[in-house]
Amino acid sequence: MRLLEERILRDGHVRAGGVLKVDGFLNHQMDVALFAQLAEQWHEAFAADNVNKILTIEASGIGLACIAAQAFGCPVLFAKKTKTKNIDGSVYTTKVESFTHGRVYDVIVAKEYLLPTDRVLLIDDFLANGAALEGLCDLVRQAGATLVGAGIAVEKCFQPGGARLRAQGLRIESLAKVASMGDDGSISFAP
Amino acid sequence: MRLLEERILRDGHVRAGGVLKVDGFLNHQMDVALFAQLAEQWHEAFAADNVNKILTIEASGIGLACIAAQAFGCPVLFAKKTKTKNIDGSVYTTKVESFTHGRVYDVIVAKEYLLPTDRVLLIDDFLANGAALEGLCDLVRQAGATLVGAGIAVEKCFQPGGARLRAQGLRIESLAKVASMGDDGSISFAP
Repeated sequence: MRLLEERILRDGHVRAGGVLKVDGFLNHQMDVALFAQLAEQWHEAFAADNVNKILTIEASGIGLACIAAQAFGCPVLFAKKTKTKNIDGSVYTTKVESFTHGRVYDVIVAKEYLLPTDRVLLIDDFLANGAALEGLCDLVRQAGATLVGAGIAVEKCFQPGGARLRAQGLRIESLAKVASMGDDGSISFAP
Repeated sequence: MRLLEERILRDGHVRAGGVLKVDGFLNHQMDVALFAQLAEQWHEAFAADNVNKILTIEASGIGLACIAAQAFGCPVLFAKKTKTKNIDGSVYTTKVESFTHGRVYDVIVAKEYLLPTDRVLLIDDFLANGAALEGLCDLVRQAGATLVGAGIAVEKCFQPGGARLRAQGLRIESLAKVASMGDDGSISFAP
């Protein structure tokens, strides 16, 4: 999506360790007018799939998911990160490793809000190693719901998450695919 | 706001310890169509205040803030909870005590996104003891920005946050004011 690529080139910054900093418009300060345009792209891509629930993970996916949910006319469910040990039987739980924070989270959703009849679209801001998205897939599987696919704002194609999850059959619509980032701050996109 | 009160009576549940569970529509599963109606109320209340930025705190305020930001035509900034010790000079930081989780968080926003020229509306899902809202006020103060007020979905009037912050001069527009909750699950609202 040209609009998002141009915004990344204008306002994004390459940082050490393969970090792409886009917190001026995507995941700290959030440009909700841009989000509405991203949402429209996902809605076009998944218009025929009868999505009735959007699932994301806290925290930075929530804004995108809510604006996307307006386009689909459905509610959002966000998976919560927790370190609570005594999780009762009322939730589905999975483990997600955060490479950014160097730790493993338990991630939960309440069973009552993720149903076998649901047709679920996953939404998140980034896809890199794919740990968060894989965790969301696992929650949908546990619920016996139908996984329609995933809408991602920025995919880092040089990290393995996208290839691995597509090989598992997940349909992923990434709106900007970063092919490489240079030490000089340059960013190139995959077609 | 009658619509929100009716939704709380229909789908909310009173739990032990003064907990009002509204995670079916407000802060786990999120009804974005309802959110748009809440946003319209806040927009009416603060229409004359030239709000140009909405500030909230992760995670459950983000959805409401993004939908509200559409009504105001402005971006959202969400304060992040962190336990990182080595916070550099690029952020404003404050401490927020979570009564729910029994711990204190450092909460940060990047200085570059909260400016002295900003006219800031705070948005959050709940106001009870007021710790989160007070932390957000402190961040706005540190930035030298103008604090226009706060839009809250559910205020628990039997907890001290609202009275304390109003006494400090904060304008708070709460859309449902819970006056009391009974052991029998009953909920009454303040006018």
